[in-house]
Amino acid sequence: MRKCYVICDYLSEENIRQISKTAQDCGFDVAFYERSEEARGNISDAEIAYCIDSTLLKEMPHLKWCHDGFAGVEKFVASGVFDSGEAVLTNSSGAYGLTISEHIIMVTLMLMRQMPRYFEIIGERGWVQDLPIRSIQGSRAAIIGTGDIGQNTARRFKALGAEKVIGFNRSGRKQECFDEVYRLEDLDRIICGTQAEAEPLDVLVLCVPGTAESSGLLSKERIARLSDKTFVINVGRGTVIDQDALLEALNEGRIAGAALDVMYPEPLPADHPLWTAKNCIITPHISGDMGLPYTVDKTVEFFCENLERYARGDDLLHRVDIEAGY
Amino acid sequence: MRKCYVICDYLSEENIRQISKTAQDCGFDVAFYERSEEARGNISDAEIAYCIDSTLLKEMPHLKWCHDGFAGVEKFVASGVFDSGEAVLTNSSGAYGLTISEHIIMVTLMLMRQMPRYFEIIGERGWVQDLPIRSIQGSRAAIIGTGDIGQNTARRFKALGAEKVIGFNRSGRKQECFDEVYRLEDLDRIICGTQAEAEPLDVLVLCVPGTAESSGLLSKERIARLSDKTFVINVGRGTVIDQDALLEALNEGRIAGAALDVMYPEPLPADHPLWTAKNCIITPHISGDMGLPYTVDKTVEFFCENLERYARGDDLLHRVDIEAGY
Repeated sequence: MRKCYVICDYLSEENIRQISKTAQDCGFDVAFYERSEEARGNISDAEIAYCIDSTLLKEMPHLKWCHDGFAGVEKFVASGVFDSGEAVLTNSSGAYGLTISEHIIMVTLMLMRQMPRYFEIIGERGWVQDLPIRSIQGSRAAIIGTGDIGQNTARRFKALGAEKVIGFNRSGRKQECFDEVYRLEDLDRIICGTQAEAEPLDVLVLCVPGTAESSGLLSKERIARLSDKTFVINVGRGTVIDQDALLEALNEGRIAGAALDVMYPEPLPADHPLWTAKNCIITPHISGDMGLPYTVDKTVEFFCENLERYARGDDLLHRVDIEAGY
Repeated sequence: MRKCYVICDYLSEENIRQISKTAQDCGFDVAFYERSEEARGNISDAEIAYCIDSTLLKEMPHLKWCHDGFAGVEKFVASGVFDSGEAVLTNSSGAYGLTISEHIIMVTLMLMRQMPRYFEIIGERGWVQDLPIRSIQGSRAAIIGTGDIGQNTARRFKALGAEKVIGFNRSGRKQECFDEVYRLEDLDRIICGTQAEAEPLDVLVLCVPGTAESSGLLSKERIARLSDKTFVINVGRGTVIDQDALLEALNEGRIAGAALDVMYPEPLPADHPLWTAKNCIITPHISGDMGLPYTVDKTVEFFCENLERYARGDDLLHRVDIEAGY
């Protein structure tokens, strides 16, 4: 019988039931492993795999389709397994917009409302009030990356009264939830070039995948041209920012603050200077983790829908463009 | 010349200009003091005062109208100065909805996304992921108090996808931004009585003024009947909650967590057990402080509009009902 393996540790009983039923209906024998170590050596007959660990790919020489439960697929792409086109890679982009955009709204408000400083004060049992704060209402945000995460974030900023939310993507193609969308190459002109003339940005959100193109996107030069009124929020990949330059800008007060859910390396070493950077909220890559049932349910829904498509011979949804890397 | 005094330390130059011009146009001589100590002894001829310190009232025997820059007016009401109706009290209810509702959204997300726990982990330079989290989208919230703050909060919960937002007020009068509004006396039936049958509340927000009626509203008995899924958020007055009972419920995990911006006493003593209560975010009464220019501008706008009304002999807006206490 044709074999399908599901290798991850975050599925609910209902998720497992749903996958089992769909696989059975589609003529597949499905087996579940919580950990990679348990799977290794037992999955060589895989035709289909749902997994999050790219090191398992080499254990499955007959793989035709792999579904990544996450949205970021750098390691899967880098494996080379999908280069020839014989095996197809799909990911779970579209499952993370809700949870990551809520993270972004949370840290935006925490930065605007001086929570890093207030938590220091509270930590010493202090009682201080009236630190200058800002509001999302009437604010200006730029979001680099206009996919599911960027769109969900833009929608929430606008719903909370942001005055202007602009987006950046490769094509400059307009998305309804943004006031304006520009091409990535307009970044300097729009964000970093006009701060002297225009109102500075309140928030710059980075939610782009980690690709060759996005690496170093927020460069030292661009950071140098940001306003000291601007908060930088990164939920994509740490490599998208020149981290040393950002650290310096934070500590010198050349940007207003940052919230970094991604960085390099991860985990961040205990003695890394980023931990104590000025007005910087560090979170351990949790903005889009599997703690929210909605996210897990979505990845499972995507997988099951694709399983039916695969069985029928239809094109798969959420297919990764191997060359573009996302 | 008729005298108007403005006694507070948070006005911008633009605010001062606006008040000066309005007073002049209305035939008043206006003087500004940043601190109460400077004002004392110099304000006995006041006909009008804008202030935030109720101890100044006894310095102004000829006062006809006092505008409180804050929304909570317990001490002004308790002074007895306004009992006879010879002097009128107005407050700044309506200036705080924006900032306090953004605080509520922030702490709701922080509680739902396990920030108290993650900050402990981060404090030890740890790296943990996948703690179970929740989302505002699809959530159920109850808001006690349906004034400006409650309405702004309800609107934001709905804008972020909350499934159901119910309100409670004295009359049960429906407000557009709530799915349902009940009378305060239905609290037990709706919130505390039906948890066994219905989906439990995700969030219970308290934004009622501190009055005789609201004192102890979230009593020990009501706390005992809340779900361990429910987060309690208080931005009104500490006295609205039986704080000892809340502390016990938090530490025993009988409620999911809390975010308290108000408590008793304030400032909270350094050795108070609330500081270390389980899953409890304490902030030093800052949800509606004067750190946000929008808030200050609004209180000044209210005052200036009323100054014109006062000069014309029209009824004043934002007038406090001395008997009701808000």
